[in-house]
Amino acid sequence: MAHARDKAFLGHFFEDFRLGQSFLHATPRTISSGDVALYLGLTGSRHVLHCAEPVAKRLGFREAPIDNLLAFHIAFGKTVPDVSLNAVANLGYADLRFLRPVYVGDTLFVESDVIGLKENSSGKSGIVYVHSRAYNQDDHEVLCWKRWVMVHKRDSERPAVAESVPELPEVVELGHLPLPDGLRFAEFDRRWTGSAAVWDDYRIGERIDHPDGLTVDDSDHTLATKLYQNNAKVHFDQHLMAQSTHGRRLMYGGHVISVCRALSYCGLENALWLAAINSGTHANPSYGGDTFFAWSEVLDKAELPGRKDVGALRLRLVGLKNCRPEDLQGSHLLDEGRRRYRSQVVLDLDYWALMPR
Amino acid sequence: MAHARDKAFLGHFFEDFRLGQSFLHATPRTISSGDVALYLGLTGSRHVLHCAEPVAKRLGFREAPIDNLLAFHIAFGKTVPDVSLNAVANLGYADLRFLRPVYVGDTLFVESDVIGLKENSSGKSGIVYVHSRAYNQDDHEVLCWKRWVMVHKRDSERPAVAESVPELPEVVELGHLPLPDGLRFAEFDRRWTGSAAVWDDYRIGERIDHPDGLTVDDSDHTLATKLYQNNAKVHFDQHLMAQSTHGRRLMYGGHVISVCRALSYCGLENALWLAAINSGTHANPSYGGDTFFAWSEVLDKAELPGRKDVGALRLRLVGLKNCRPEDLQGSHLLDEGRRRYRSQVVLDLDYWALMPR
Amino acid sequence: MAHARDKAFLGHFFEDFRLGQSFLHATPRTISSGDVALYLGLTGSRHVLHCAEPVAKRLGFREAPIDNLLAFHIAFGKTVPDVSLNAVANLGYADLRFLRPVYVGDTLFVESDVIGLKENSSGKSGIVYVHSRAYNQDDHEVLCWKRWVMVHKRDSERPAVAESVPELPEVVELGHLPLPDGLRFAEFDRRWTGSAAVWDDYRIGERIDHPDGLTVDDSDHTLATKLYQNNAKVHFDQHLMAQSTHGRRLMYGGHVISVCRALSYCGLENALWLAAINSGTHANPSYGGDTFFAWSEVLDKAELPGRKDVGALRLRLVGLKNCRPEDLQGSHLLDEGRRRYRSQVVLDLDYWALMPR
Repeated sequence: MAHARDKAFLGHFFEDFRLGQSFLHATPRTISSGDVALYLGLTGSRHVLHCAEPVAKRLGFREAPIDNLLAFHIAFGKTVPDVSLNAVANLGYADLRFLRPVYVGDTLFVESDVIGLKENSSGKSGIVYVHSRAYNQDDHEVLCWKRWVMVHKRDSERPAVAESVPELPEVVELGHLPLPDGLRFAEFDRRWTGSAAVWDDYRIGERIDHPDGLTVDDSDHTLATKLYQNNAKVHFDQHLMAQSTHGRRLMYGGHVISVCRALSYCGLENALWLAAINSGTHANPSYGGDTFFAWSEVLDKAELPGRKDVGALRLRLVGLKNCRPEDLQGSHLLDEGRRRYRSQVVLDLDYWALMPR
Repeated sequence: MAHARDKAFLGHFFEDFRLGQSFLHATPRTISSGDVALYLGLTGSRHVLHCAEPVAKRLGFREAPIDNLLAFHIAFGKTVPDVSLNAVANLGYADLRFLRPVYVGDTLFVESDVIGLKENSSGKSGIVYVHSRAYNQDDHEVLCWKRWVMVHKRDSERPAVAESVPELPEVVELGHLPLPDGLRFAEFDRRWTGSAAVWDDYRIGERIDHPDGLTVDDSDHTLATKLYQNNAKVHFDQHLMAQSTHGRRLMYGGHVISVCRALSYCGLENALWLAAINSGTHANPSYGGDTFFAWSEVLDKAELPGRKDVGALRLRLVGLKNCRPEDLQGSHLLDEGRRRYRSQVVLDLDYWALMPR
Repeated sequence: MAHARDKAFLGHFFEDFRLGQSFLHATPRTISSGDVALYLGLTGSRHVLHCAEPVAKRLGFREAPIDNLLAFHIAFGKTVPDVSLNAVANLGYADLRFLRPVYVGDTLFVESDVIGLKENSSGKSGIVYVHSRAYNQDDHEVLCWKRWVMVHKRDSERPAVAESVPELPEVVELGHLPLPDGLRFAEFDRRWTGSAAVWDDYRIGERIDHPDGLTVDDSDHTLATKLYQNNAKVHFDQHLMAQSTHGRRLMYGGHVISVCRALSYCGLENALWLAAINSGTHANPSYGGDTFFAWSEVLDKAELPGRKDVGALRLRLVGLKNCRPEDLQGSHLLDEGRRRYRSQVVLDLDYWALMPR
């Protein structure tokens, strides 16, 4: 019996990428109400726009839009086979913008361009920068983002490619912040969320310690990540991971984002719409059995041109594991003069949310 | 960075409640077919009305109604932030009536009134009685119930409020038992459920030992409870619970009700419609890893006025953990002259089911 | 209180079966988009026909059909209460054909006939052969299969029935291989799956080692099996299984089939449609915590009469646990001259897939 290992694609290595190279990722994906229910069940999210049809309609949506993070995870999953199957680590995100609401029944098609390449000095790996975009069945772009990821080289002896590092915005500019068509937060009723705190009530510099905690078991994060058809081995293959330094399956960082955003509900109930992610770092790995907590900080506030009904809050969402926010002074410590994340910090996310005024 | 813990609502304490006080609970919730599939998957329920569209239509429903217990859990979850976030224990339910079928696409809005208050002699907590009602998007009441719950006081030195204990019916009277509009059990075909035993075949006093057992893992009950957007910490936060006397996450009692009702299928296949719950007690706590069993007792039988196609059975559903029904003589033992539940008993539920005749 | 154990059906024993006996199985089941999402989440399947509506339409389907294995599991689950509640083991499948696509909203009604009976020499059990068929709400047969299962006798002293063993095809003949109405693979676009390997590129005798591995936890397989309303005790009742030689819950073999089929995606991306299963063996039991791997072998290739757009591949799918395919030379070893499965082999499935040419 002849082996045909070549038919089973093992992913790109660093030297397979070229600046300007484009990928049309496989497996377009239609979103269903089953995805939405699983997302609620796996995160415990209570953000009202995504679970109450009449509320979404009153606020100007055609129907209840799916959570933007669910759309992101599904789109992100598509990029894994081409971009990050041989990744050492996902280093960061930038300029993630949710351009249009995604509804049940929409199908996402995802593309990526290589916008930067930089070999590591070790010669064993390099950083690949990609710009990814998801389109719906009508060919409308619904979300886009940039990420950079460290990818193994197949052959460390092979000479380095010319270095090209793209310029990435630290923050999505207000002028680029997409507002869903027809959005009308003037209709907002505070009883829908149980919180009276709206845009005007938040102050720059304010920190909110969210009181809830959520333990995530292996079945939970693997169910979520399989739903997103993300096939990175580190999340699923205990046989492989038992031999790694982790000793167990790694949680998909995107699930940590979703869990922390859900935990941030209490204290930010009216941050109804996640409009853009400015940057994100997975500060430490997470595993099944970890209990997550979060705090938020108000980094900035912005009025939106011509709108009296809605304002933008720039928030920093800090995710912790196995430690309550009130038990941690800050996210970083000084280690021989160098600032690094405390071991309890798993997420440092900087995003724009839209809130009624 | 200024802390803003006040924005994160920490729940009401006993002294925050006033007799006659009303709550319109947050996060109205649209039911989806994803919720229904998850409910099937998490309970293993085989009740035919909720999983076979053509059967439901033949029996007079517009389409397959969702399981009444699913509607209850979602509605109940809404009441948690206002009523029981600081609860010591959920003490009981009464007069739970399913007034109208709930269908996929319906949105539940939930309200509660405080109908009773009684401080405990310790001064550390008190009992709050609430009357809760769920409405659909057409403002039709679809279910209602009363429950009482022991809630911590914020300040044990504060004097007691005037005691007011409501009268609660032990059993929902037949005249108050709601029959779904259009219900026609005359069309019932025994092959749909595989059981020939209908209303006429059950005798008052009869006990049915259900043969199936179901082990529930932590991922199962937490997935269910997050789906219901019930945010009581004891179910989710292992970091917290590790320090409690339980040492681990507590299972939401409602999930135990659903699992035991599903287990009761074998022997009560034709108890097609759960019409009302007379009372319910969570006799002992349950945890991930417990295996559930159940027996049922026929407490009463009643004809319904003017109906030859359908009768009501009053059933007692006794839920057990890690013990088969045939290995337990009764639910109680005598402990120094006092009757109390055996440690294997987790549920004692008294309900009315509708069955074809 | 009188016990009524008789109302709780405990399943048929070997001597309850008669040649030619028919069962119309209970609990017809309507398929929902929630089932589809759970199937994706529980298996990680990426087969494009079942998750991308526009792709399915382009290829000639009314909408995205559900995965044929999902239809099979739901139909199979219906047969368990009548056929295999007292089974010692599921011995094999044959002649499983997917006659028509199943869509969300379809309701499956399932029937079985007893087509063979053979008592074991021990007198303690016997083999029951059944032919099962699932129909949709329009009374169209959508899938059919034969299986044989070893069932306990109630009374080993009772004399044997006359032996009757049916002839079963080793392979579904090409003339019996159902092609979905309207199928047009000429429209296939390789970018949908990311693989350029089509029917013409596979050679008889070729072996493909699939690179992915998937760990399945207890919550995962029990959630799937409850969703299928399969109530075989061995999958769910840890209280029972703790006393068995296994010591823990057994994974439903059908879930292993689904997981291995999903793992086979990488290397067989364009095996778009599972048309028939020729035979299947669960070579060893699987448990929660096992990590699955798979390899495939091309057993045969066939053109289809009058079709230039689609060809059939006969594939052998070998499922492994806790062992990578490249670490195993073959599925069998010689044990004192007798060929038997290696302990790592959990599945040996022989099926026909349709692939674009």
